[in-house]
Amino acid sequence: MGPKALDYESLNENVKKVQYAVRGELYLRASELQKEGKKIIFTNVGNPHALGQKPLSFPRQVVALCQAPFLLDDPNVGMLFPVDAIARAKHYLTLTTGGLGAYSDSRGIPGIRKEVAEFIGRRDGYPSDPELIFLTDGASKGVMQILNCIIRGEGDGVLVPVPQYPLYSATISLFGGSLVPYYLEESANWGLDVNDLRQAVVQARSNGITVRAMVIINPGNPTGQCLSEANLREILRFCFHENLVLLGDEVYQQNIYQDERPFISARKVLMEMGPPLSNEVQLVSFHTVSKGYWGECGQRGGYFEMTNIPPKTVDEIYKIASISLSPNVPAQIFMGLMVNPPKPGDISYDQFVRESKGILESLRKRARIMTDGFNSCRNVVCNFTEGAMYSFPQIRLPPKAIEVAKKAGKVPDVFYCLKLLEATGISTVPGSGFGQKEGVFHLRTTILPAEEDMPAIMDSFKKFNDEFMEQYEDYRSYSRM
Amino acid sequence: MGPKALDYESLNENVKKVQYAVRGELYLRASELQKEGKKIIFTNVGNPHALGQKPLSFPRQVVALCQAPFLLDDPNVGMLFPVDAIARAKHYLTLTTGGLGAYSDSRGIPGIRKEVAEFIGRRDGYPSDPELIFLTDGASKGVMQILNCIIRGEGDGVLVPVPQYPLYSATISLFGGSLVPYYLEESANWGLDVNDLRQAVVQARSNGITVRAMVIINPGNPTGQCLSEANLREILRFCFHENLVLLGDEVYQQNIYQDERPFISARKVLMEMGPPLSNEVQLVSFHTVSKGYWGECGQRGGYFEMTNIPPKTVDEIYKIASISLSPNVPAQIFMGLMVNPPKPGDISYDQFVRESKGILESLRKRARIMTDGFNSCRNVVCNFTEGAMYSFPQIRLPPKAIEVAKKAGKVPDVFYCLKLLEATGISTVPGSGFGQKEGVFHLRTTILPAEEDMPAIMDSFKKFNDEFMEQYEDYRSYSRM
Repeated sequence: MGPKALDYESLNENVKKVQYAVRGELYLRASELQKEGKKIIFTNVGNPHALGQKPLSFPRQVVALCQAPFLLDDPNVGMLFPVDAIARAKHYLTLTTGGLGAYSDSRGIPGIRKEVAEFIGRRDGYPSDPELIFLTDGASKGVMQILNCIIRGEGDGVLVPVPQYPLYSATISLFGGSLVPYYLEESANWGLDVNDLRQAVVQARSNGITVRAMVIINPGNPTGQCLSEANLREILRFCFHENLVLLGDEVYQQNIYQDERPFISARKVLMEMGPPLSNEVQLVSFHTVSKGYWGECGQRGGYFEMTNIPPKTVDEIYKIASISLSPNVPAQIFMGLMVNPPKPGDISYDQFVRESKGILESLRKRARIMTDGFNSCRNVVCNFTEGAMYSFPQIRLPPKAIEVAKKAGKVPDVFYCLKLLEATGISTVPGSGFGQKEGVFHLRTTILPAEEDMPAIMDSFKKFNDEFMEQYEDYRSYSRM
Repeated sequence: MGPKALDYESLNENVKKVQYAVRGELYLRASELQKEGKKIIFTNVGNPHALGQKPLSFPRQVVALCQAPFLLDDPNVGMLFPVDAIARAKHYLTLTTGGLGAYSDSRGIPGIRKEVAEFIGRRDGYPSDPELIFLTDGASKGVMQILNCIIRGEGDGVLVPVPQYPLYSATISLFGGSLVPYYLEESANWGLDVNDLRQAVVQARSNGITVRAMVIINPGNPTGQCLSEANLREILRFCFHENLVLLGDEVYQQNIYQDERPFISARKVLMEMGPPLSNEVQLVSFHTVSKGYWGECGQRGGYFEMTNIPPKTVDEIYKIASISLSPNVPAQIFMGLMVNPPKPGDISYDQFVRESKGILESLRKRARIMTDGFNSCRNVVCNFTEGAMYSFPQIRLPPKAIEVAKKAGKVPDVFYCLKLLEATGISTVPGSGFGQKEGVFHLRTTILPAEEDMPAIMDSFKKFNDEFMEQYEDYRSYSRM
């Protein structure tokens, strides 16, 4: 009898091809070390609450009440919950049929999709249609749904920035498509050059690939840059001329740590460009409750908004969403709360603002401490983290280190990151997990460790790095003698 | 310029091929009518809370506290929450790093997977390994993950019961595989005959299809039958000889409405059969918090347990789960609570038992009222609902009704169900959405409307049906004249 269907050798090859470094070799080794009792600092994934960030009180109060609606009839409820949280919980429960225990419509609760549309309208200055907004179990699930519709086979290509968040490479592999890389320019603060995009498309075509879509991550992950309005215009014009769907990953739109380039949505820029672009370019934009100053990763809530997508396609996306019935309802409430936070005059407003500002201001400081820390290290250079939650320093590995790594059967940056992990407990992701130019090495770390822990972490990093560099540079000088 | 990538004509053909009737034409028409002000009874999907079932208090108290952990420090918390709920919330929070706002491990929280393993061990009398249990956003997502690993292309077949819950047909289409039907025998109370399975495999092979897996739904959806131990043994022996992975959809294991055939898991039967089967047959079993007497559909919580799946494959499934980071954490807590409910002596025990029994006993009564109601109707015959949440009556449509339906461009049972919806507001799913033998027609309805509403609903159904039959049987007699 041959191999069984779930033996490794008979699995779907696309499944096997997938690479996903954020939870790859480094994460697995870190988990082992943790089990053995070593203190691990998990900076491999943007997971703020796991590193001690406290949840915002107001949304948690509202969702707790929605989970326990019988409390709303309890005369003592006011002893534990403020009146505006009680009112808001009642509001969301009226938007559901059956509360949090009932499947919602597969696109999400209509009343919450309306609140999202109103938020987008306020943010961009152009109205948004709730019928074109689908709520999802986190932004990743939405990206996967859309790519599943676009990718028909390996002849279909998707332009993806390199370095990139590996959701994109993994999903494209899983659906059997082709990733078409375009390189961000590290020396220009991870800027995007439209000429490189053109070259990437020409190159892909010469390999028989039809490029059908383009991904932008703004602010960038892992690279932290914010796209300028002028850059977004160029990208949209390019998509128009090349007939590409633009996927706008805008999950870090609240995470901005400089004032020169505030976040601007791809949709707003598109609308401002007017016809023919504004009614031709197909755009899907993604957002989440996992990032921003909320950081509610574990709730798994997100949405996508579709622009210029024909109704028959929207119906197909709806049908596919129906197979798993509905996104989880508690996270839909979180999304409603995120786009509709307490207002001036509400009892919870001051506390909400204080908590939110505390988180954002601290992240801004941590972005600075981390970048400066990396730049003080031997053979390490790091662009400033303008937005998102990551630093992506370049690690200039000495030739001897590269040689030793290869002898050990490791990609050189994996070798470096493993040594860092063993020495310091800092769990990062090697740059090779995101893609980088040949012969250039990086690592990604989140800026999420607590502000008070940050100096010690950077000291520990510097000590490890500088010793590492000294060790392998010495080797080099010996070998030259 | 050609069509754009998200224009209907250029979408992934597998997406377009998917059919999913549970939220198909009938559901869409029902939603329209509801918007127009008509009272709709949504019996199209097993969604108990949407039809008025109250959530169990204890699990909701625990999850509410986990959402608002700051309440645990509030001296007044005891005024709203019982001490065992408080203790349990603290327990679950210690199992997480960062509470509900942090991504968990992509397989789910280790401590909860351990509780699930202990539950399975108690249920089956054989120990279960937490490392082989993955928590998921509902059982459907787990089924999709596993089928994604198994299906490599249209040459790969999956045996699926007909009638079946369309999750299976939809997912197999989406991943580009081939559905290999085996028919359940309505006249034998929807029994499964292993000879039919053999024939189905032979037939599929002659069409060049490699059958790799088999799905059983026990208790059955939409058919409501419970598999006997003898039948499960035959199925497992068949899977062993044919080298098939068995997917055991056991989401209705708490929903049993007769005493002759209590639920028995495929895993328990497999273990009792001993070697070589017990260490050879690959089995994946699915469960959920959405069904049972919990009915927590909107939370989206489930698990799958793998038996005889090699570690390298488990690693691949883990990798794919990692792409979307983690299942939602609140529903993981619900799963922990479901497998570990209050015990005798706990403060909440009596209330929990009272609430649970109330729901299950009422479902048992409703199963009976509904079956009897259908069997009192002209040209309708219905097997008793032994388990799960559905009735699946056969509707013997007069030839004239079939003819009129076809003229209207409708599948005959869709025609009937649409008429039923317009006349009564009862929203069902046509049997064609689940598969049925050629020329035989059914509908599926849940048994979930409130017990007190049930007699009126069945009266309304009978009135519509008997008039419909009279109308079209009269036509026939006229046309014969």
